[in-house]
Formats: sequence, C-alpha cells, structure tokens
Amino acid sequence: MTDTSKTTNSAGTDDGGRHRGEEHPAPADARASGARVSRRGVLGAVGAGAVGGLVVGAGGGIGAYAATRPAAPTPLTHLGSDAVAFHGTHQAGISTPMQAVGHLVAFDLAPGAGRAEAIALLRRWTACAAPMTEGRPAPGHDTDVALDEGPSALTVTFGFGRSFFDRTGLVKQRPVQLDPLPAFSSDHLDPARSDGDLWIQVGSDDALVAFHALRALQKEAGSTARVRWLMSGFNRSPGATAHPMTMRNLMGQVDGTGNPKPSEPRFGEEIFVPAKPHGTLASPAWMAGGSYAVVRRIRMLLDDWESMPVGKQEKVIGRRKSDGAPLTGGTEDTAMALTKKGPDGELVIPADAHARIAQPSANGGAAMLRRSYSYNDGLRGDGKPDAGLLFVAWQADPLKGFVPVQRKLDRGDALSAFIRHEASGLFAVPAGAAKGEYVGQRLMES
Amino acid sequence: MTDTSKTTNSAGTDDGGRHRGEEHPAPADARASGARVSRRGVLGAVGAGAVGGLVVGAGGGIGAYAATRPAAPTPLTHLGSDAVAFHGTHQAGISTPMQAVGHLVAFDLAPGAGRAEAIALLRRWTACAAPMTEGRPAPGHDTDVALDEGPSALTVTFGFGRSFFDRTGLVKQRPVQLDPLPAFSSDHLDPARSDGDLWIQVGSDDALVAFHALRALQKEAGSTARVRWLMSGFNRSPGATAHPMTMRNLMGQVDGTGNPKPSEPRFGEEIFVPAKPHGTLASPAWMAGGSYAVVRRIRMLLDDWESMPVGKQEKVIGRRKSDGAPLTGGTEDTAMALTKKGPDGELVIPADAHARIAQPSANGGAAMLRRSYSYNDGLRGDGKPDAGLLFVAWQADPLKGFVPVQRKLDRGDALSAFIRHEASGLFAVPAGAAKGEYVGQRLMES
Repeated sequence: MTDTSKTTNSAGTDDGGRHRGEEHPAPADARASGARVSRRGVLGAVGAGAVGGLVVGAGGGIGAYAATRPAAPTPLTHLGSDAVAFHGTHQAGISTPMQAVGHLVAFDLAPGAGRAEAIALLRRWTACAAPMTEGRPAPGHDTDVALDEGPSALTVTFGFGRSFFDRTGLVKQRPVQLDPLPAFSSDHLDPARSDGDLWIQVGSDDALVAFHALRALQKEAGSTARVRWLMSGFNRSPGATAHPMTMRNLMGQVDGTGNPKPSEPRFGEEIFVPAKPHGTLASPAWMAGGSYAVVRRIRMLLDDWESMPVGKQEKVIGRRKSDGAPLTGGTEDTAMALTKKGPDGELVIPADAHARIAQPSANGGAAMLRRSYSYNDGLRGDGKPDAGLLFVAWQADPLKGFVPVQRKLDRGDALSAFIRHEASGLFAVPAGAAKGEYVGQRLMES
Repeated sequence: MTDTSKTTNSAGTDDGGRHRGEEHPAPADARASGARVSRRGVLGAVGAGAVGGLVVGAGGGIGAYAATRPAAPTPLTHLGSDAVAFHGTHQAGISTPMQAVGHLVAFDLAPGAGRAEAIALLRRWTACAAPMTEGRPAPGHDTDVALDEGPSALTVTFGFGRSFFDRTGLVKQRPVQLDPLPAFSSDHLDPARSDGDLWIQVGSDDALVAFHALRALQKEAGSTARVRWLMSGFNRSPGATAHPMTMRNLMGQVDGTGNPKPSEPRFGEEIFVPAKPHGTLASPAWMAGGSYAVVRRIRMLLDDWESMPVGKQEKVIGRRKSDGAPLTGGTEDTAMALTKKGPDGELVIPADAHARIAQPSANGGAAMLRRSYSYNDGLRGDGKPDAGLLFVAWQADPLKGFVPVQRKLDRGDALSAFIRHEASGLFAVPAGAAKGEYVGQRLMES
C-alpha cells in the first residue's frame, strides 16, 4: 500500500470540496461516536443539515443506509486515501459513511475451540484489521492484492452471535437482546446462511481493498473458526452521482430516508448501548458503547415489481420513485401527511404503504440505522434474479428497533409481496477497541 | 439519470487533470479505434507514453488488461459523468479503459427463435444500450435504479458464439475463427458456463449503473433468448491508487504488463479484423472492424499460491511482485533478460516462468489485448475460495492470439499448478454500429 494514505479526522464547512488526506479536527458528533469519519462523509452530511456522515430524512424505505456522497463536481483528489479510524469509542462501520463494496461473513468456532482460542483469534483479527484500515499491509504474509492502494475507506466491524456465548462459557454475559428473533410469516430463512458464532462486516470504496481485507481475516481465522456464510454486496460509487443522494436499492427506490441522524439528540442512545446500561432488560456492562446488528438477506422479486407501473410501485412504498418525497408532496425530507385523502376519498399514502408502516412514530418511536448493501448473485434455477438487499440495521436494542417494526411490517406491509427474507442474523457488536486493546476484550475478560 | 452527464470525446496533454464532461476532439488513435475514449483513459495513457487508454509494458501476466488510472491527487470532478461513446468504428469495451465493475453474460436463442427474432433482438439491444451509455434511461419501462447517476463509463459490447450461426441459418457467414478452441490439458471446463449463442460484456465504474444495464438488457431478451450463464467481476476503482498503475489480480501480481498498446503501429491489425479481410483463413467481410473475444473463467488456487513465499511466487511468474519488473531488473516496462543467469548458474527468469512463456516473441508474435475482471464468488463446498479471473482477451484472430499462447502455456507454464480454467467462450464481436444501425447489422443482412 502507498504511504500517501492517511488516517484523517476531518471536518469542515467549506463549499463541499472533497479533499482527502488532510488533517482536521473531528466535529463533536464524530468524536462522540468514536468513529473518526472522513471529510467526505462529514461534508455531505453538513450539506444535508447534519453532522456525522449521514443523509437523513423522514419516512420509510426497506433498507439502504443513506451514506452521504459529495456534491459533485467538487474535487475528489484520491479516493484511495480516504481512511476511517479503526480505534475509537464505537467500532467503525456503524455510523461511518456507507461504502461502495461490502462483505458480510459469519464464522463458527471450530470443534474444540473455546474461550482461549476465541481470545487469541480476536487478538489476531484486531492486529490484522487495524493496519489495513490505515492502508498498511496485514501483518505476516500479506497477499499484496491491495499493495498499490490506500485504505479506500476500509472498515472492519466485528460482532458476536448468540451461539458464541455457549461455545466460550460466557452464557452469563449474553445479552437478552440476542434471544432469537421472532418468526415472521414472510420469512423463508435458510439456516445455513443465518446466524453464526462470529460476524464480520467489511466495507470499502474499492473492491480489491475489500477482497484483500476479507481474505486476510479469513486466513487469520486459521483452524480456530470456519466460514459459515459469506455475502457480498455493493452500493453506488463515490462520485457516480452529481448530488449528495440517499442510496437507491435494486427496486429503483430511494432507500434509507428515515434513518436517524447523528445531529439528533437521541441518535446516540438509539444506536449505541449507553455507557452505563440499566434496567431489567438492559444490555450487560461489557456492551457499553456497542450496538446490535440485525442482518437480513432480502431477495427482491424484481420481475413482479418491475411489471407494475411506477404509479403502483409508489402506492406500495408511499413515496415518489423519482426523489423519495412522500406521495403527499414536498421533498424527501418532508413529513408524510398521513391523513391526507385524494379526490377519490382514499388515503394518498395508503394504509398498507411501506413508508407509513415502517415509520418510527407508528412503532413506539422504534429507530434503527439502516446501512445496507445491494446484492446480485446472478440468476436462480427458475431464471429469476437472485438479487436484493443485504439489510443491516443498527440499534441500541433490537427489541425496541427491528423487532417491533418488522412485526408491524409482517402484518400489513404492501411491500411484503415483492420481497423474501431468506437469511437472518443478530449480532452483538461491542464497542470500539482502544489502542492496545483487542475487539471484544471487555467481554472476553469479564 | 442526470443531465449532467455528457458523452465526451476528450483528449489533452495537460498535467493529468481529470476533468470529465468537457468537450475535446479525440486524438487520432482514439478516433482510429472508433471508440471515443474518455479523457481519463487518454490522459493516463499519455502519461505512460501511449495514447488510447492503455497502460502498457513488456512481458507476461495471466490476464488483467491494464487500464489507465489517473495520476492522483488530480481532481476527479465527477466519476459518473465519464462517458464512452456507444457508436463508432469499433464497439466500446475493447480498447476503451477498463472499468471497476463488469458483467459477462451469455444467452441462447429460445426454441423457435431464428434469424428474424435475432434481428429484432439486436435492434432492441442496440436501442437499449446506446442511451444508457449516455446516462439516459433505457427506453420503455426503465427500472430507475441508475436514475440519479451519470453513465459512469458504461460500455456494452455484443458478440456471437459459434452456435448462433446454426440457429439463424448463417453458417456460411461463420468465421473459421469460431471453430472450437483446442482442448488444453489443464482445462476443467463446465459446459453449462461455457459458450452460448450470444454474449454481452457490460462494464461501468459504478455497480448500480452496471446492474441497471444488465437488467435492462436481460429484460429486452424477452422470450427471444435466455441467459445461459452470467459472471460478475471487478477491478480497482478509479482513484484508489495514487499512481497510474497496471491492474493487480487476486494473486497480488501486477497483471496485464504485456498488453499491446494503441500507439504501436501494429495495434489495429493485432486487435481488430482489417477493413478488407483477405487470405484463405480470413474473417468474413462482415467482421471488418470487429474483434474476437476469448473468455476464460480462471479459478485461482489461492490457498496454495499464498502458502508460497513471495520469492517463489516471483519465480513462477518471472517478475517482481512489488512492481511487475522482470526478475532481471529494471521497471515494469523493461524487457526481460531471458538468457541472464544468476550466481548459481540458473536462469534468473526460469524456463517455465509464466512471463517468459507467454511473451509474444515466444509465440510467433502472437498478441492479444487482455481486459479481464477479477471475481469472488465466495467459498466452494471444500472451503476454498471460488475466486480468480474472468479473463477476456481480444484479438484479430484467436488462431494467432490466444490459441498459440495457451498451447505453449499448457505445456510448460509454472503458473498452471495454481489455476484452473473452469469455463470457456469464444465470440465474434462485430464492428461498432453507426448511428441508425443496430449491432451486427452487417452480418444479419448479409
């Protein structure tokens, strides 16, 4: 890797210039999140009236987290030099900007591997991931695949599945939040592609950098853990659009509009476990600063979806396809006029519209930060596209985030007819590791 | 799609600035190739002492075409606005710069579909592809997946497989160049992922743009043709490296060093069928301006490869891993000193080194333009990575390009132990369509 890459901690309020590799102090929100976000994200967010790397709005969308993209044509000096700090209060890859390429991979501990082996693995993984996020080789025998490149916004995020605690004798430390998700009527789950002892999310704006990191992490697993499942996805490339835009999913829908924004006072408590968890169903103390990731592989029935006129698609979602604005008017950020009726006396945003049902106010304020990747695995045996969304939702408590929303959607969402939940995972993602610590140390040594 | 995208025909000799969306006359070479290349490619090539969008060198490498990347940190104003003209003497996607995302898809005509249906399909495909390469929606019911984006260097390239000519009553027009490739001892070919009546290569610097185009083309196939196989790959993103670099493959090796360069006098005749084919084994007249694509899915045995020290890997290739220079010294562009011996009396570049065996001068001057994508399809049942290279090689005549080189490699290439050819295709790619024409018109109406 080149030495041109720098781990930056950048912010600014200039005209949207996309200067990488410059040193700037992080804004308060970014520092509070512990994830030193790149200037790219911060600037885009500032442009959208927020700080911390999120484009925000109000309303539905089944998944993609709205990472900011710079307002082009502004200079993008060197995509590869964009760096996201590995160490911090929170792990990177949660409130840091969405990347163009993502891999989700789950591991199971090998037979015979217990707590000691898991500790050694977490040490190796930490030692492997941290330098790569700075554009440096993985220790040991680096494959050289990313030799010429900067970090390209690489993030590596580690989590623990429910079964991990049994395997390592840590059941007493297991959060109640990892209790199995309820079964939903629309589930068509494949157990082989669900769950897992350990989970890693790799994201980067460059596919070679992402492959390089994935391969290095897999090799560090050695004989301690085996890959249970691996899913790969993508998002729009930085600079592919002229405006900072919320992401689109493969249905063509603006997706991620309703995400909580770091500038909101409740963002921290909605997404991250508080510093001192309290209450009967509170997370254990080792999860302070952590978050819970719900992962769902959601196949889209694109043939069915695309056979409908855009007007009908918009009724299913409750938002305009062109710009994500509510059918009741305004822009993407405008609140839905939920009681507004059309000349026909019907609700303009139908009762079963996805955006209506998914909105936090319809779910006891349930908030989650959706940060998803699209996937395209070619064609199925029946000739239909095996494509959709690798939905990743982050929250301080899935029982207050994903679960109530999905329960509601399961009963009455018009979108359900066009999607299939094919795999599911739920992971406890501990706080970020300080320098000298390994990820998950507070759990493993508790 | 936004109206900020422009189809540009740009060139320049300035300091490497990456300005997209500006109008410049094409350089002579770019015009001669018929593929109006974007300034990005031209400038990079100029920086490497060439014109036309290729980084070049001298020597081996199993596959990736060395597309130029801009010398960063230079301004990249808007990746999405980069456009490659669809119409021209040659189809785009051959001598135009490599993109970050690629899909290769083969179709078979449906039972009952013949020449008339194929003509109608080629008309639909042309009408579908051309606007998308300008950042405009596909006609009819666009899915809106790429609605906010520019063309992001989208290219769509169409070819005909051997079986197409039987199906359409055009056997007399079939080039002898489409005779089946010889069997190689290292082949482990899967017929279901090989060959096909029709072939499309989709490339873009943005994954949503590439998916959007792929989906639109698949839908236009309607009941006329069915997908036979689909493979998806990637390369380094524009801007991920600070220097214009030849691509690296997933073995970490600089790959594509020996590619012919458009500035060389013989480039045109090596890659494209001449305007007036002549000789006993000449291509038919309808192939004038066309090229032949050899497609090989080459799985890499990465576990075996990576278990070797870098020094041994370099002996297998005959080049330094760090920079692609020959083991006999110099830089990537330096000629190999093939007779040079080390202190031990052994050849420095071993007799079975890949770069030695693959070099054109060892194969009667056989030249091909390798323009490949890496692929990563996860893990196989045996836990090994299902990853490698979607090798795509372009030449005026495969009997003078791929076939003699592969025959030679098949007998003595040290790299053979680390790769498996798992699928194979050979396609006649006609000249570019002029405005108002459809791709392949000269064949279909011959």
